[in-house]
Amino acid sequence: MVVANKNRFWRVVRHLRAGEDYNTDIFELDEGPIPELSDNEFLVKILYLKNSPAMRGFVLDGGRYHETVPVGQTMIGRGLGLVVRSHHANYQPGDVVSASLGWQDYCILTTEGGDHEIASVQKITKIVSPLYRLMGTLGSSAFAAYFGMLDIAQVAQGDTVVVSAAAGGVGSVAGQIAKIKGGQVIGITGGSDKCDWLVNELGFDHAINYQTEDVNARLRQICPRGIDVFFDNVGGSLLDDVLQQLADHARVVICGLISTEYDKVPPPGPAHYYNLVYKRARMEGFIVWDYVDRFAEAENQLAKWLANGQLKATEDLVIGLDKAPDALGALFTGGNRGITVIQVAPDAEELV
Amino acid sequence: MVVANKNRFWRVVRHLRAGEDYNTDIFELDEGPIPELSDNEFLVKILYLKNSPAMRGFVLDGGRYHETVPVGQTMIGRGLGLVVRSHHANYQPGDVVSASLGWQDYCILTTEGGDHEIASVQKITKIVSPLYRLMGTLGSSAFAAYFGMLDIAQVAQGDTVVVSAAAGGVGSVAGQIAKIKGGQVIGITGGSDKCDWLVNELGFDHAINYQTEDVNARLRQICPRGIDVFFDNVGGSLLDDVLQQLADHARVVICGLISTEYDKVPPPGPAHYYNLVYKRARMEGFIVWDYVDRFAEAENQLAKWLANGQLKATEDLVIGLDKAPDALGALFTGGNRGITVIQVAPDAEELV
Repeated sequence: MVVANKNRFWRVVRHLRAGEDYNTDIFELDEGPIPELSDNEFLVKILYLKNSPAMRGFVLDGGRYHETVPVGQTMIGRGLGLVVRSHHANYQPGDVVSASLGWQDYCILTTEGGDHEIASVQKITKIVSPLYRLMGTLGSSAFAAYFGMLDIAQVAQGDTVVVSAAAGGVGSVAGQIAKIKGGQVIGITGGSDKCDWLVNELGFDHAINYQTEDVNARLRQICPRGIDVFFDNVGGSLLDDVLQQLADHARVVICGLISTEYDKVPPPGPAHYYNLVYKRARMEGFIVWDYVDRFAEAENQLAKWLANGQLKATEDLVIGLDKAPDALGALFTGGNRGITVIQVAPDAEELV
Repeated sequence: MVVANKNRFWRVVRHLRAGEDYNTDIFELDEGPIPELSDNEFLVKILYLKNSPAMRGFVLDGGRYHETVPVGQTMIGRGLGLVVRSHHANYQPGDVVSASLGWQDYCILTTEGGDHEIASVQKITKIVSPLYRLMGTLGSSAFAAYFGMLDIAQVAQGDTVVVSAAAGGVGSVAGQIAKIKGGQVIGITGGSDKCDWLVNELGFDHAINYQTEDVNARLRQICPRGIDVFFDNVGGSLLDDVLQQLADHARVVICGLISTEYDKVPPPGPAHYYNLVYKRARMEGFIVWDYVDRFAEAENQLAKWLANGQLKATEDLVIGLDKAPDALGALFTGGNRGITVIQVAPDAEELV
């Protein structure tokens, strides 16, 4: 296997201050040699990287639940890679792994400690085509949609389901799962093109463009009997609006808080949370990585739905490691559609 | 059975405006004759009445989930009464009933429609002593504690449990149930006398006096591993404080919102609700009347705990129908301790 003699990597050069808008100037593209392998190490050529909104926490001063990447270090991020050299008994050239690989071309991994990052390395034994699906509609965003909609929301036939950031990575799959389970699904997103995509491509019953429509009024019109499930990827005032339209025994899944998570001072909470009492309703948060033991279950089910056409894949492939900072930023400006996957190796699909 | 020839009753003379503090001047004590019974009606002599904070909604302009008692009508309220005359085949003099009887000495009921209020009449087949226990530690406040702590909070051995308004009707029982189930229980209340009562009489592990102590600091000290269950009868800023100290997989039970429920404009919601994500936690509301089908289960279990001494009865008996408006007001000023029961008939315990 031919290995380049240089490694490009995105270095974190400063942290975002609390309350500061995301800015790509916190990263700098650098390059360096690929070091020799020590015992029990193996070299991975990075094929794809996965972005998620939570990654902003990696570069935030005083982030709430992530460790911050030290200034000068390579930005971390999960990805899919090919083992190209190995001094490790369990990993051979040709193996495909999913791991925390970082924003770079090559990564040295070990599974037994050492100077390099010890990642939760997962060997991929079932290769799918296209391979990037494992970072997309068969990856962690889709798993968040799966466990959030099935385990937390416990969506059921006939439920009226509202999904915010519905054209995003998690939302685009969450809404489709609710539809598969017999729900009436309303997606909220920004832009008429995304609304069209949700309804015409993904099969949502309705889409509301928050940029041009009165979301509250539209929800009242579409959901006269109230909202049974709100799958919230946004937070903020939209959550408070929806809390006023809950049906009895409603479930509000708090999956993300993009709108407010990075504000310096938390904005006012949802004033109408007391509707949880009047509507005997539940609001619950979750973190997909708590479900690692059940990822195989989710992957199997999602693969079946993909195969029989009930679920449409929603990857948004961004080509080139150089695009990584912009692609992350797009998650905070609504510039993405579906699950963003960064293709690092131009020939990724031919290599496996 | 001797029946008085006059009926005293508390008439609603005006409604509380939104945001107005509770005021006893909305009621006026009046009296009138006891009408003759029509077919299928029976006359009930009222023995005890039960007050609850939710009753404020009955006299509030634009109340959120109750029907408002029209001006000029008798204040409604659940109570325990003795059938003293009957033109109804299923109810005989001597029967004891629990029903919506109103703030008065006598009430005419029917179970088949008619001019008078059709209440959800429940015949009491198992008389307990003292009888007022059925409005107290074997009544709806205790049932709310039971279902809230067991079904919603799903309290378990070793849980750190915080109860607000802990010396109130629901809180005083909720904390004891958590203790019975093996929790470490912290009560928040106002006043050192109530703190003493919680710890020394009811067996709470700790009590915090919010009037004199820094609740946040004390909770951090007592609960270094975080709070597993918060049984909230208060709402407002206390809820937001506790949300910052949740343990992983915490359950927040929204039982009541005394602090903010009657404000004209809802105050800011709990800004730290996003901790529900980081802590994979759940916040859930409920209404005890949804559990009517399981009241017998709750009553049996509570009676067993009372009998074996694990549960202390917490009724606070207020003597005299004339005290009803003041007793309701005490619920909003912290003037009560335990479950308020109003004794209407001076000889109530001797009559059954």
